[in-house]
Amino acid sequence: MNWKKTLASTLVWSKSKGINKLFKQPGSQRVQKQLASANLVEVYLIKKQRSLVGLFATLMLTLHCQSIAGVSDDTSPLLSSSKAPTSEPVSSLSSASLMVEKRIFEMPHFTTFGGKQIKNVKVGWEAYGTLNDAKSNVILITHYFSGSSHAAGKYDENDPAPGYWDSIIGPGKAIDTDRFYVISVDTLANLNAYDPHVITTGPTSINPDTGKPYGLDFPVVTIRDFVNVQKALLESLDISKLYAVIGPSMGSMQAIDWASAYPDWVERMISVIGAGQSDAWTTAALEHWATPITLDKNWNNGAYSKEQAPLNGLAASLMLITQNALTPSFFNLTGNTLGYKNVESAPLNDIRQSHSIVNWLRERAKTRAKSMDANHLLYLVRACQLFVAGHQGNLEQGLASIKAKTLFIPAQTDLLLMPYLSQSAHQGLTSMNNDSTLVTLNGKLGHLEGVTNVSAQAQAIRQFLENDKAAMQ
Amino acid sequence: MNWKKTLASTLVWSKSKGINKLFKQPGSQRVQKQLASANLVEVYLIKKQRSLVGLFATLMLTLHCQSIAGVSDDTSPLLSSSKAPTSEPVSSLSSASLMVEKRIFEMPHFTTFGGKQIKNVKVGWEAYGTLNDAKSNVILITHYFSGSSHAAGKYDENDPAPGYWDSIIGPGKAIDTDRFYVISVDTLANLNAYDPHVITTGPTSINPDTGKPYGLDFPVVTIRDFVNVQKALLESLDISKLYAVIGPSMGSMQAIDWASAYPDWVERMISVIGAGQSDAWTTAALEHWATPITLDKNWNNGAYSKEQAPLNGLAASLMLITQNALTPSFFNLTGNTLGYKNVESAPLNDIRQSHSIVNWLRERAKTRAKSMDANHLLYLVRACQLFVAGHQGNLEQGLASIKAKTLFIPAQTDLLLMPYLSQSAHQGLTSMNNDSTLVTLNGKLGHLEGVTNVSAQAQAIRQFLENDKAAMQ
Repeated sequence: MNWKKTLASTLVWSKSKGINKLFKQPGSQRVQKQLASANLVEVYLIKKQRSLVGLFATLMLTLHCQSIAGVSDDTSPLLSSSKAPTSEPVSSLSSASLMVEKRIFEMPHFTTFGGKQIKNVKVGWEAYGTLNDAKSNVILITHYFSGSSHAAGKYDENDPAPGYWDSIIGPGKAIDTDRFYVISVDTLANLNAYDPHVITTGPTSINPDTGKPYGLDFPVVTIRDFVNVQKALLESLDISKLYAVIGPSMGSMQAIDWASAYPDWVERMISVIGAGQSDAWTTAALEHWATPITLDKNWNNGAYSKEQAPLNGLAASLMLITQNALTPSFFNLTGNTLGYKNVESAPLNDIRQSHSIVNWLRERAKTRAKSMDANHLLYLVRACQLFVAGHQGNLEQGLASIKAKTLFIPAQTDLLLMPYLSQSAHQGLTSMNNDSTLVTLNGKLGHLEGVTNVSAQAQAIRQFLENDKAAMQ
Repeated sequence: MNWKKTLASTLVWSKSKGINKLFKQPGSQRVQKQLASANLVEVYLIKKQRSLVGLFATLMLTLHCQSIAGVSDDTSPLLSSSKAPTSEPVSSLSSASLMVEKRIFEMPHFTTFGGKQIKNVKVGWEAYGTLNDAKSNVILITHYFSGSSHAAGKYDENDPAPGYWDSIIGPGKAIDTDRFYVISVDTLANLNAYDPHVITTGPTSINPDTGKPYGLDFPVVTIRDFVNVQKALLESLDISKLYAVIGPSMGSMQAIDWASAYPDWVERMISVIGAGQSDAWTTAALEHWATPITLDKNWNNGAYSKEQAPLNGLAASLMLITQNALTPSFFNLTGNTLGYKNVESAPLNDIRQSHSIVNWLRERAKTRAKSMDANHLLYLVRACQLFVAGHQGNLEQGLASIKAKTLFIPAQTDLLLMPYLSQSAHQGLTSMNNDSTLVTLNGKLGHLEGVTNVSAQAQAIRQFLENDKAAMQ
């Protein structure tokens, strides 16, 4: 009954009372004031508390910064590094403010898991820390569905926010860049096709054979293809062993596929808010993200220009993704800040109008959609739908080849990749006598716990990487 | 942790083993054979077991019959009863096979909760049992989102299935038609606008002022409007008191709004898989049902003909509704029967193709869409979004006016109207010293437990109606 209690305990059935109670926590007057002025960066720096209000502020910061990235028209000076030689390792500054650069890795030819050829593959990558002489200190971070290789640090001191897992990656942090060489790579068909900090190859790329964007002529790509591009980059750096591979959500799919497909490479694997496979439920659930795009009249079977892109369909998809990745607790707190009421006059009087909470969701999605591509979303959905660790007949076969020690970190309130998915992969490995551990993120943000609040399990991650399993339990 | 255990316990991580194990339950070989031949009606009649396999068979029957209804081209002879005088009570046959007729109730003018006028309102209704002389034995059943007034019985002995709650409504059943006069009414803007057994007034109806279908000129209607039409029908029968009002899902919204708006009418209220309000989470979640329709190029801002209806958008909406109303357990069992695999060759080789589980979901939705209307779905979404018991400022105010004894029956695995929604309404009433009880449906079908498997709480319903609260707990 825990989940019911968890949800019920934060549900504000008498809304006005509830929000006041939440805001009466210590230090919350300041948070309230800051939320009102939307100056959320300052809130984040002043007070990083673990209460729901603190999480709310932190998440709003994340959303705020994503929005900023989405509407930025700046051409980042960092893209000038695209002219640097490929496969060159980056030395980060091991200081409190980790500064990072985007690099490019290129492959003249790439063969997909489905046997199709892609020419001129180009992806962005970042690295933090220093590669040791033995090349034995490499940790690969694999990114989530709407994420990128920007896992930690800042490109510029004035960036509004650092990479998404900066709370656990950096000097002295759980994934300690004083010790490890941490590397992260943009996937093929990365969602943020028009983000100047993302470099990817996908349906928006120019097909060398036609001189036009691929559209739906781009071959289907899989989680395995993301892994294989990463492997090629690592091999270009003369790396042949991963101390660990770690990723959240779609990144967890890459991490466990790495461990299954290349067991001699992977010594440790951490799956955060993850899955060992897309079961029938998950594959069906992902389809609803694709459908609005294919209904948009601008989609035109995938043949559209950036100027006439299916942005309404893409925004509808992002609205659903945001809902799936969050929880009633978060939405109801947001509703309170918006002054949400059931009987709002605009939606009561006009079927074409919407409630405040819907307008909030839609406007955020429209802003984010500007840096994203609709076809890329379809291809990422497909990659996730086709996923099973090892890409063999079933999960059992995929797990059987894994040699790595594994750590699974599901989020208790996750409604997208529910905890049973991590549990079944963990139990499968345990039943095969693999060394597997599972700890849980217990916050109220659902799936997003694994991105926004992963530091709640920083100690477990640190101890796992230090081989100190006993201390974790 | 109970929900995790519930989900995990039915997850089949080794799929082939899992399905065999499930099918090895007593009597299941016959079920397996029947599922294979899709002769599910026989399964239902032969064996109505409460195991997951039994529930699966029962639900497949429901889906099967809904499909049949969806593709029927027959013009039902029952529609001839539309010429019968309005507001005439129906005497049902109190036998094992309850036979029912559809009647019509008409109102020349109706004023909505939002203050708009609708002329020539016409809705269908059914009744089971006999109205006593004192008119004190009336139970009103209010239907769910995609349901109708066909709550029990059959129109014809050859009907493939009876009304949706036939397991608890009938002679000697929990809602005993030997004792009660049970009545049910089609809502305004009923989803099944083209089902010959449904009579409704909504956007597809002809606007008397223009001679054309209303489309989006139809006024926004609310749960209160459904209640007010029901009240007008009851008043036309000289009824002024409800022994009970009972409904699942959107029907629960009508039931609790009845108790709040007309407390002197309602002696007892039962909310099944229900809510006291659409909180911000629920209102946002419902919006995703509407969006695919508005993206369909055939939608044309609601001005379309039946021949060029936005059926793709409507089907996409129904696909999401089915997913929201069910659970991983059900989808994964269905996946097993379909031979679902993660790496299926069609979706691997062609971005335009889909997995077996997606095709199953889509084909079912397309079939069902044929008897439904897309604009009606938008109006029902809006009615649910605007809902709070009492339609006042907030839930607390709405609950405060309720005098009825209440019984809440959430489903433990419900992912659509999660149990916290019932719990908060129940707790609100309890805190105001109302006589309120909550019992839970513990099956694995999520929201659909409240339709398909409501009989699991038949005894609690019977005892509540007999005022025997002590025996329920």
